[in-house]
Formats: sequence, structure tokens, C-alpha cells
Amino acid sequence: MPKVGILMGSISDLDIVRKSVEVLKEFGIEVETRVLSAHRTPYEAAEYARTAEERGVEVIIAAAGKAAHLPGVLAAYTVLPVIGLPIKSSMMDGLDSLLSIVQMPAGIPVATVAVNGSENAALLAVHILAMRYPHLADRLKEYRRSMAERVHQQDSKLQEEIL
Amino acid sequence: MPKVGILMGSISDLDIVRKSVEVLKEFGIEVETRVLSAHRTPYEAAEYARTAEERGVEVIIAAAGKAAHLPGVLAAYTVLPVIGLPIKSSMMDGLDSLLSIVQMPAGIPVATVAVNGSENAALLAVHILAMRYPHLADRLKEYRRSMAERVHQQDSKLQEEIL
Amino acid sequence: MPKVGILMGSISDLDIVRKSVEVLKEFGIEVETRVLSAHRTPYEAAEYARTAEERGVEVIIAAAGKAAHLPGVLAAYTVLPVIGLPIKSSMMDGLDSLLSIVQMPAGIPVATVAVNGSENAALLAVHILAMRYPHLADRLKEYRRSMAERVHQQDSKLQEEIL
Amino acid sequence: MPKVGILMGSISDLDIVRKSVEVLKEFGIEVETRVLSAHRTPYEAAEYARTAEERGVEVIIAAAGKAAHLPGVLAAYTVLPVIGLPIKSSMMDGLDSLLSIVQMPAGIPVATVAVNGSENAALLAVHILAMRYPHLADRLKEYRRSMAERVHQQDSKLQEEIL
Amino acid sequence: MPKVGILMGSISDLDIVRKSVEVLKEFGIEVETRVLSAHRTPYEAAEYARTAEERGVEVIIAAAGKAAHLPGVLAAYTVLPVIGLPIKSSMMDGLDSLLSIVQMPAGIPVATVAVNGSENAALLAVHILAMRYPHLADRLKEYRRSMAERVHQQDSKLQEEIL
Amino acid sequence: MPKVGILMGSISDLDIVRKSVEVLKEFGIEVETRVLSAHRTPYEAAEYARTAEERGVEVIIAAAGKAAHLPGVLAAYTVLPVIGLPIKSSMMDGLDSLLSIVQMPAGIPVATVAVNGSENAALLAVHILAMRYPHLADRLKEYRRSMAERVHQQDSKLQEEIL
Amino acid sequence: MPKVGILMGSISDLDIVRKSVEVLKEFGIEVETRVLSAHRTPYEAAEYARTAEERGVEVIIAAAGKAAHLPGVLAAYTVLPVIGLPIKSSMMDGLDSLLSIVQMPAGIPVATVAVNGSENAALLAVHILAMRYPHLADRLKEYRRSMAERVHQQDSKLQEEIL
Amino acid sequence: MPKVGILMGSISDLDIVRKSVEVLKEFGIEVETRVLSAHRTPYEAAEYARTAEERGVEVIIAAAGKAAHLPGVLAAYTVLPVIGLPIKSSMMDGLDSLLSIVQMPAGIPVATVAVNGSENAALLAVHILAMRYPHLADRLKEYRRSMAERVHQQDSKLQEEIL
Repeated sequence: MPKVGILMGSISDLDIVRKSVEVLKEFGIEVETRVLSAHRTPYEAAEYARTAEERGVEVIIAAAGKAAHLPGVLAAYTVLPVIGLPIKSSMMDGLDSLLSIVQMPAGIPVATVAVNGSENAALLAVHILAMRYPHLADRLKEYRRSMAERVHQQDSKLQEEIL
Repeated sequence: MPKVGILMGSISDLDIVRKSVEVLKEFGIEVETRVLSAHRTPYEAAEYARTAEERGVEVIIAAAGKAAHLPGVLAAYTVLPVIGLPIKSSMMDGLDSLLSIVQMPAGIPVATVAVNGSENAALLAVHILAMRYPHLADRLKEYRRSMAERVHQQDSKLQEEIL
Repeated sequence: MPKVGILMGSISDLDIVRKSVEVLKEFGIEVETRVLSAHRTPYEAAEYARTAEERGVEVIIAAAGKAAHLPGVLAAYTVLPVIGLPIKSSMMDGLDSLLSIVQMPAGIPVATVAVNGSENAALLAVHILAMRYPHLADRLKEYRRSMAERVHQQDSKLQEEIL
Repeated sequence: MPKVGILMGSISDLDIVRKSVEVLKEFGIEVETRVLSAHRTPYEAAEYARTAEERGVEVIIAAAGKAAHLPGVLAAYTVLPVIGLPIKSSMMDGLDSLLSIVQMPAGIPVATVAVNGSENAALLAVHILAMRYPHLADRLKEYRRSMAERVHQQDSKLQEEIL
Repeated sequence: MPKVGILMGSISDLDIVRKSVEVLKEFGIEVETRVLSAHRTPYEAAEYARTAEERGVEVIIAAAGKAAHLPGVLAAYTVLPVIGLPIKSSMMDGLDSLLSIVQMPAGIPVATVAVNGSENAALLAVHILAMRYPHLADRLKEYRRSMAERVHQQDSKLQEEIL
Repeated sequence: MPKVGILMGSISDLDIVRKSVEVLKEFGIEVETRVLSAHRTPYEAAEYARTAEERGVEVIIAAAGKAAHLPGVLAAYTVLPVIGLPIKSSMMDGLDSLLSIVQMPAGIPVATVAVNGSENAALLAVHILAMRYPHLADRLKEYRRSMAERVHQQDSKLQEEIL
Repeated sequence: MPKVGILMGSISDLDIVRKSVEVLKEFGIEVETRVLSAHRTPYEAAEYARTAEERGVEVIIAAAGKAAHLPGVLAAYTVLPVIGLPIKSSMMDGLDSLLSIVQMPAGIPVATVAVNGSENAALLAVHILAMRYPHLADRLKEYRRSMAERVHQQDSKLQEEIL
Repeated sequence: MPKVGILMGSISDLDIVRKSVEVLKEFGIEVETRVLSAHRTPYEAAEYARTAEERGVEVIIAAAGKAAHLPGVLAAYTVLPVIGLPIKSSMMDGLDSLLSIVQMPAGIPVATVAVNGSENAALLAVHILAMRYPHLADRLKEYRRSMAERVHQQDSKLQEEIL
């Protein structure tokens, strides 16, 4: 069973992160969710990343706001793919979080998604896991079909409402 | 042999993209490099993404500047992981490129790296390919060791220069 | 009867788009309104633009937020004038939407209006349609006269209130 | 013969604007080019817009930088479509010019293109003129074919260079 | 009696502008308040500025939001000092309004105050009028003394509250 | 007993500043809290900084918003360490406050913390005071342990909630 | 003879400020130019503003960059009109300078002009001085006529060049 | 002898950092300068901070660019005061570096100075060290006197040049 580790710097991020958990479970992926801070629990955060692979974690999602160092710090301690989820925080709707995550220096990439893009963080993990678990590619195609279906339903509803 | 497709919207992006090609080749990865524009050659860009999987492409890197739609448009036509590489273009050092790539709506993620982060786009592709090709994880660990080594050499050189 | 196609990426954009529909109807223009997503329904969006002209559509208005690719993607498939309406979304009051729409690369222009500028998107369509339907120029002049009239009424009311 | 008026606030903008003139001439469109400032020659600018229609002008392109009022001021005096071309000026690569042009209040739209997007300003004028001159739609399709052709040539050249 | 003209582009700006009116009246200055739009009533706005001096207006305050052209447009038609008051509008807390007002091209200055800085717009007018009416300089010094007094009262209150 | 002076430009900043006071008291530090404005009470502000050292103040925290000059102005009159606390004010979530405080010219540094970072302003003062009062270093280590403990408790709670 | 005081925080600002001096001299205005820093020479800066009026200075222009406190600090010590000239400095083309100058708190206005808007700083001083010296209003009208003349000459030259 | 540790993420930052070293040496402070990366040498960076105190380091200056995690990461492992020096890097003149450093979450402060503010990073360290080494306060006062002297010399030179 594929396995994703989801970390957040503070439990207050759970409101956003919960959607990632739901999407991953919908794809039948095991989720290990933790609150760990790059700054307040630096040893544990480093240890988490260093040992994630041996615990069976295959992809890490790290949510963080403001000077959002968590994804980059984790990425420094593991070669597992790390997905950075910028949380909308105090300044300019999360521009600080976004830049702190995406502007990583050469050598240690973080795969960054949109500010508060919780669903996409999970989906990106699934796209990556599909490299190893081919059935997930099929599940993603189904997921897209149902998204397209919802757009078509909105479109139909719009025709009724507008006319 | 693992295979990555690299697309750029204009050949002028090659200055930045070349580093991605070099890094991927250093890891022994086959690279398929194309100039295709989401706006000037929309049919070919869509077709590229739609057929990438059957041609053996496993990860796509798309470089684009300004209203940088290429990564998102490709992602809409494939479930392969798509990495977006924002090119520093005319406005605010690429903030337009970055936001046009990273702020994807729910459903279709693009794994975004830093503006002009060509080396990291390639490395992220390797991290993802390592899901399927375990030897790449070992190669990444070597790569990191040699990066750390270079930092140590800079550090040694600094001691000589400063003192 | 002149005809405008209005597209939005999600039905949640309807709150803003509704004003465009109202203004166009006020000018006696037929409106074809659709929910179609550049990313979730890419084939249908491309097909819409490719066939718009033969269905009698003369100008396209596309509303989109965040990494707002819809106007640019549509413009790639048609030579009809495409008006981009940036929706205020999650970041910096729609700066992401605005830059994703206006910063189009050379070759494929999108006529961009203000963030949430729904009335102006419709009016711009009327200005453009007036190229083919001269009576619309007269209607625009009337529209402006009544706008000026409203300003004068506000001015009169102000005199009463302030004094 | 279709006719476009191109205005710039200062002759220093000509470096950027020249491309608009060239593109329009390539499409066989008559161009009336003027230096007129919304602030230094306000009477003449207003008069230009007020009388443009009777002089046969069908679309106006106005280039301006910094507090770029020219397009909006012209639009206030005419119902001809006005295209705003933000010039990269002193601040943040033209963000001031862009916002001063695109953020027009409800009632008076300006069709805004990218910062320094001189080719697109001209092409947008052609898209609009094609409402009245159907042969221009065919010319635009040719233009796009040759753009796509250039992308394909870049792509071929890339294959040679990379390999 | 000194006289200031206050213009706003829309009566919705009155919430902010009202403070300017109050401050000016507190200084015994006659206020002429108008709703006039640079875009919806361009002739009247130009005429207002052109004739302001002969009507006895000595300083003009112009409040505007978004693509805030009103202060610059008025300044183009008069050599009276024009104070620009950027209104916090739809984007980035009024950054669009601020840049559209302050970034005037060489030749036509607008004296710009803070976004929503209604009290300061009025005070700046008083500072300028004090050039002609020396008693206003004394009034300004009193005004500052009472401001300092209020700060001291806050300070005293703080001591009580904190301890 | 160590002593910190906390200044704010307006009593409205107290909502944010109160946390600084609480944290400092928790560390057993004497706090002198004042409302003084760099602009409305410039003499008193300068005098405060000039005499702070002789009154036993060892570190100054200055909170300010908008064109936040208070920390820099105080720093110009004393060689005590000055900590600048940008208050989220009218524009872009305090970007104006932040830049006005942090971008000090060479010669007069202000130690700047995050926008509304009231707890960190106090903690930074403690880190600095620990240079002179070694027991504070121990207190800081305890403080960090209890922060880490709270993260662990959140983590435990998360395990219960998620499962 | 009217008299303006021009202050700059560093002699490196003279490149920009020189234009202000030239324009003022062209209008026959006496100029007192000083290098004084709000942070490095705070006593002298305060003293300058406090005594400016008695030395016959009628308007103050203060140029400053980065955390540009000089105009606001001077304004705190005088009721003379203070014009703030933001110097393009290290960040975002002077956005830091602009916000540090224009976002003054209620009570102490600074009349702000464009970033590096040296000519306009001087012209604004002339507009203000014209309150007391009516002949300056006539000189400003002449100045505008010759500016308009230069625009017309550019326009004529353009006709020759383009055709 | 007081001792400061200066860290930079890459030897390319030395151009900026060198000024910090010079200023500290001018004050007779021992400097330990290292190249260590939060991402490429995470173990060594953590170890450096963890052991800095026992090696006699009293203040840490950390210079970093882009997603500038180094200062925050070091601060997580030590209670020594950490000064963050944002390096102007690829985006918006270092706004990414600044926000990544200054926007630290509650609990772990970083004392942030201006972008490329190398002299101020060193001076802030001296201000902090003066808590323990009172002679440094005197040295700072001398330093300020000589800065003021240089301003006065610039002022004198200006009088000669302008007149």
C-alpha cells in the first residue's frame, strides 16, 4: 500500500491540510500525519525526514506558512520527493510562504503547489506514486473524468439558471 | 532507461533549460527536448502531452515565461507528473511566470520549482523517477555528497582567503 | 443579432460574470454562457474556441482566476477577439489572475480588463462589436450619457448632503 | 483601407511602439502615429480622441508608462475601441504602467495587453478590425500559421543542436 | 477666506473624503465638494480644473481609486496645487491607486498622500494655504500641540492600564 | 533586574504589543511601556531614546505601522539595541511597515522581526539581554523545551483526531 | 526672492537631486542645498527643520532612499510644506523609498512625488510658492507651454521619421 | 575578546559579507567565518549552531538568498542571538530572501537587517555585544561621530560644488 507522510508546522494548518488527507485516502493511500516544526522541534523534524524512507514513506507533503522552512528543511535530509504546500498566512495572502518554499537553491528541489492548494498537494503525490503503482494512473484518469463531469453538470445547471 | 520530456515555449529559453538537460544526462536519463508553444502551436502541445506516455516519457519538464501556460496546459492532457520551470521574463523577475505556473486550480497540479531553477527542475524529475528506478535514489545521494563536498571546499578556501 | 460567448472556469465565477451577461443583454446582444475549464475540460475548451466562429460567436469573454489560463488557451484556437476578465482569487487580490491573463506572449493577444471588471468586459465586447454593428456605437454613446447623468445626480446629492 | 491611430506620450516610447507600426503595415492597415501627452498636451489629446472617428480612425492604440493615463483619457472621449500598451518604465518593470491602464473604473474599458507587448497591441487591433474587414481574419490565420512554422523550425534546430 | 476644491470620482469615496472636509472646516477653510469623474464626465472634470482658479479655488484635493487618473487629469488643466488622495480599492490595498497617482511623468506633479490618508490630504492643503494665509501656520502649530497632547493622554492611560 | 523599553506610535498598537509585555514579564524582565510618536511627539521620542540608557533601559522595542519611522528614529539617538516590530497596517498586510523599518541605511541598524511578530520581538530582547544576564539563556532553553512540548502535544492530539 | 531648502540623506543622491536644483533656479528661486541624514545626523536634521522658517526657507524638498525617513522626520519639526522625493534604491525600484515616504500617519503629511521624480519635486515647490508669489503661476504656465511645444516638436519629428 | 560567527550559504555571498567582516574587525571583534548551507550541508549547519556557544561564539550572523532558510535553521539550534542578512538574489531585489528570513514563526526570532545590509549586520552584532562588553558602546558612539563627520564633509563639499 503506497504511503505518504504529511507534516505541518502547527496544528492550526490542519484546516487546510485535511483536504490532502481526504484526497489521499480516496486514492487508497496510507497517510502518516504529523505536527513537527522546523524551528520549534528541529531535531525531530530532521529525524523524521532522515528515517522516513526506512519507515516506508514514499512521498512527503509539508505544509507551512510565513517563513515556511519546513519543506526545504525536510528535503535537505531525504531524497524522497518533497511537496511544499504554502499556507496563506499573515502577509500578502501567502506570498511569503510561497517564496520561502519555491525559491529553493540549486541542489535541493521542493515540488511546490499553489497557496492553500491542499487538494493539488495530494494529487501531485498521487501522480508521483503512480511511477511505482501503475493502478494509480488509472485512478487519476477516473478522477479527472469525474472532475470533467462536474464541470459539465455546472455547465448544464448554468444553462438552466441563465435562460 | 528512464526518459524525461523537456518542453520550452521558445528556443530563447534554451539558455536556462540547457542546465536541466545536462543534469538529467549526468544521471543517465534519456531526454526528449522540444520547442512547443501552448499558444502558437496549441494542437501540437496538446498532442505532445496526450501521447507522451505511450512514447515512453515518464516525467515532463515545461519551461515558460510571462503568462506561462505551457506547464498547466500539458498537465491538463496527461497524468504524467509535470514539473513547471518559471523563466525570468519581463516583469518583476519572473513573478508573472511563477504565479502563472504555481497557482493552478484544484485538480491539475504542476510541481513548480524556483524561477530559473533549471538544475532543480531536473533534480526533481530524478527524485520522482527514483520511485520507479531505485538506483537513482543512490545516485541522488552521491550527488548530494559531492554538493556537500563542494561546500566544504568553498569553506576551506574561505578560511585561507579571510585569514 | 450580435453574439458573444462568455466562458468561466467554474460556476463560482458566476457572481462576477453575471454583470457581463446583464450588460450585454441590455445592449440587445445574444449571449452564449458556458462553464468550461482549460484544465479540467481541455478538449471541450479547445473545441469551443475552434468552433465558436462557425456557431456565430463574434467575441469571446473568458473569466478566470489564479493561474488563469482560460482566455489565453481559447485565444490560441480562434482568431475571434478574446477578452480576459481576471477574477479576484486567492492571492494579492487577483494579481495572479491578472498577470496570467495579460502577460500573453507575442502573437496571441488577450484584451484584458480590470480585476473583477465584469461590466467593462461586456462594454469592451460592445465597443468591438460596434465595428460590425454601427448602431451599437450609438447605444454606447447613450450608455455614456446616462453614466454621466448618474455622476451629475451623485454630485447634486452630495451638495445637499454636505451643506 | 482600415485605419489605426497610435499615440504615445513621449517619443522615447517609439522604440517599443515601432513594432506595432510594422505589424499593422504588414497587415495592410493605415497607421496614424502621434506623440500626444495626456498631461502635457491635454487639450490636443482630448481633441484627438473626440475627432478620431470622423478622421476615419477605427481603433486606437495608446502607449504610456508610469502613471499611464493616456489610454484611459482617450477612451473617455471616444467610443472607438482603445488598446492600452503599458510601457516598462521606472518601477517594478512597468507594474505601475500596467495597473494605471488596466484597472479602469466601470464604464470606460481599455483593452490592455502585456507590458511592452507592442506586437500584441497591433495584433489585437487586427483582431478587432477583422469584425469589419473579414479578409483580416484570413490574414490572421496565415500569420498564425507562419508563427507556428517558426516554432517548428526552432524545434528542428533544437534537435540538431541538442543531439 | 481660503478655499479648497475637493473632487471625488464616485460618491462611494465620500466615506473617506468626509474626513478631509471636516478637517478643512475645522481650519475655517471654505470647501467646494464635487463628484466628477475623469472618465465618465471628462469634459466637466477638465472644465472644473480649467476654471477653478477664477472661481477662487486655491488648492485642489482629488480622491480616486483603481486606475486613479482624476488628480493627474485635473493637474493637467490648472497650475493650482493638486493633492492626490489614493482610495483603497480593489487591488493590493490601493497599490494601484497609489501608483496611478504618484508616478506622474515629469512636468505635471501631483502632491500625493497615503492611501486613504484623508486627514493628511486636508492638512497638506492647509500647509500649502499657509503660504498665503499666515494665520494658518499658527493654526497648524496649535493642531500639532493638540495631537501631541492626545499622544500624551494615550501614554498616561497606558501607564494606568499596563500597571 | 533587566529592563526593556517598549514604545508604540499609537495606543491602537497595544493589541499587538501586549504579547511582548507578557512574554517579557514571564522572563522576569522589567518593562517600561510608552506611547510616543516619531511624528506627533518628535521631541519626546528623541529625548526618550537619548536618555534611555541612563534610565536603565537596556533594549528598546519599537512598534510602528505604515511609514514606520519610530524604530529608526529612536536608533538614531541611542546605541542601545533597537528592535523594530512592524505593525500590520493599511497596505499589503504591513509591507509598508516592514520595509520602512528593515531597510535602514548603513550605520544605524534596527533588528527587525516579522509583521505583528510581537512574541518574537520580546524573545529577541531576551536573547540579547542574555548577553548580560546568563540566567536568561537558561530560561530561553526552558521556553523552547515547553514550545517543543506543545508541538508534541499537538502532534499527539492530531493522531487521535485523524485516526 | 522665494527660497526652497533641498535636503538629501547622502551626497550619492545628488545625481537625482541636481535636476530639482536646476528647475528651481530656472524659476528664479533661491535654493539652500544640504546633505543631512535623519539617522546619522539626527540632531542637525531636526535643527534644520526647526529653524528653516526663521532662515527664510518656505518649502522643503527632502530626497531619500530605502527606509526613507528624512522627509517625515523633517515634517515633524516644521509646519512648512515638505515634499518627499523617493530615490530609487536597492529594492523593487524604490518601492521601499516610496512607501516609507508616502504612508505617513495622520497628522503629519508629506507631499510625495514619483520615484526619482526630481523635476516634479521642484515643480511642486513652485506650484506651492505660487500661493505667495503670483508671478510664479505665470512662469508655470509658460513652462507648460514650452513643454507642450516640445511634445509638438516630437510629434512633427515623428511624422517625418515614420513616413 | 568578543567573538562573532558569520555564516554564508555559498561563497558567492562573500562579496556582500566581506563588509561585515571588516566592520567587526574594526571593532576588535574576533570573527569565525564559514560557508555552510542549510540545505546542502544540513548536518554541519545544525552542528555549527548547536556547538557555537561552547566554541565561544556570542552572536551569529547568517547571510542567505532566495528561500533563505539558513538564519532560521541556525536559530532553531541555539539561543545565541542570530542576525539574518538577506542577500539580493534572483527575485524582486531580494524580497524572497527578506521574507524568508524576517517572517519567522513565533518562538524563534531572527534579528533581520536590510537586503545586502552587510555593514548593519555587523553593527547590530556590536550593539548586542555591547551588552556584555561595555567598551563597545563607547566605540559605537565614536563610530557614529565619524559617520556624522563624513555627512558634514559631504555637506561642505556639496556647498562648494553647487555654488
